[in-house]
Amino acid sequence: MYNTESTKIFNKLLSIKSTLKGGTKFSLGNVTLDIVGNDSFGNLIQEWFGEWCSRNNFNVIDGKAISKSSQTFPDFYVGKDSLLEIKTFNGANGPSFDIANFEAYCKSLAEFPERADADYLIFSYEMTDIELHIKDIWLKKIWEITCASDRYPLKTQVKKDVIYNIRPSNWYKPTKYASFKSKSEFIEALFETQKIYRGYSLYDEYKANLK
Amino acid sequence: MYNTESTKIFNKLLSIKSTLKGGTKFSLGNVTLDIVGNDSFGNLIQEWFGEWCSRNNFNVIDGKAISKSSQTFPDFYVGKDSLLEIKTFNGANGPSFDIANFEAYCKSLAEFPERADADYLIFSYEMTDIELHIKDIWLKKIWEITCASDRYPLKTQVKKDVIYNIRPSNWYKPTKYASFKSKSEFIEALFETQKIYRGYSLYDEYKANLK
Repeated sequence: MYNTESTKIFNKLLSIKSTLKGGTKFSLGNVTLDIVGNDSFGNLIQEWFGEWCSRNNFNVIDGKAISKSSQTFPDFYVGKDSLLEIKTFNGANGPSFDIANFEAYCKSLAEFPERADADYLIFSYEMTDIELHIKDIWLKKIWEITCASDRYPLKTQVKKDVIYNIRPSNWYKPTKYASFKSKSEFIEALFETQKIYRGYSLYDEYKANLK
Repeated sequence: MYNTESTKIFNKLLSIKSTLKGGTKFSLGNVTLDIVGNDSFGNLIQEWFGEWCSRNNFNVIDGKAISKSSQTFPDFYVGKDSLLEIKTFNGANGPSFDIANFEAYCKSLAEFPERADADYLIFSYEMTDIELHIKDIWLKKIWEITCASDRYPLKTQVKKDVIYNIRPSNWYKPTKYASFKSKSEFIEALFETQKIYRGYSLYDEYKANLK
């Protein structure tokens, strides 16, 4: 199900997980300080991942190198031309990252149905004293980290009746709404949510573009 | 004129200035990234300075350790009970730091006239590629880094007719307004500015508290 190269990367990362400790340091001359409370671990871990893959000879290309825009999808191309997204969250809090902007995702998926096949490599981290360490790593498909919700068939971030982002299920704990069981369950929930929210959906366009 | 310990610290720093290179790095496992474009060099250098003094056995106490509040004056106590402020600026741009909030400084100086005797240790830094280095270091009194301006006898940051901060002269380059030549010149300019701005000044209170 997952891309072969993604799987190799995932297995290698799992095998060295206990060594994935570090953090941010500031140094001048021979004095070095640990910097705590850095809010940008997500970006740092993603940048670190690109460098780590390159040093370990994995076949991964930074999405930004291709699009040359600040467009954020995909984070990486892996293997021949599979899509790889990196997500991170503080393991003390549970998953709370944005999977994607809801409307942009509907539109992009209708045009490029293969986007639903992207691999998601997910890191949870923890800070102990001054050290950052990687707590868990998962390789997932989008339907394995999304679920239904009270309000919509797809769990989303809603503020004042506006849907912003697709939000993750808590895939590693039993919760009220379990993650979807298949890609088609996710696709249906996505476009059904769009239909309820907008009065129309791009499901037909998605099917037409499906190869 | 400067505190003896401040002077020792300054001389030691000057003697190792060429080694004061470094920057911010993020690491996990055996992969380390240089982090560029860090906007918080000021805070980092100040924190670094405290650690550097402690490792080099200089008699310096972090002001935060005494006040236990987020109060920012003084940055450090040096020697017996002298005041030491740390200022930093990007050497590519020239000095643009805030010396102090104008009104808070007037009030605090009127109450504690010794505040005018604080030493200012000033670092200019530069980023070359991915490396931060200390370009220049100065030890100064406040009247050596302040000057007059077109609008007020003391150069300040003014937005929509509101005075916010006392801003530095460009003490190391010839400019329209040279730095003050003495403490009394600065004191007069400070309270004269307050009088023009507020219609009153705390100069009499300052004189009354002067030991």
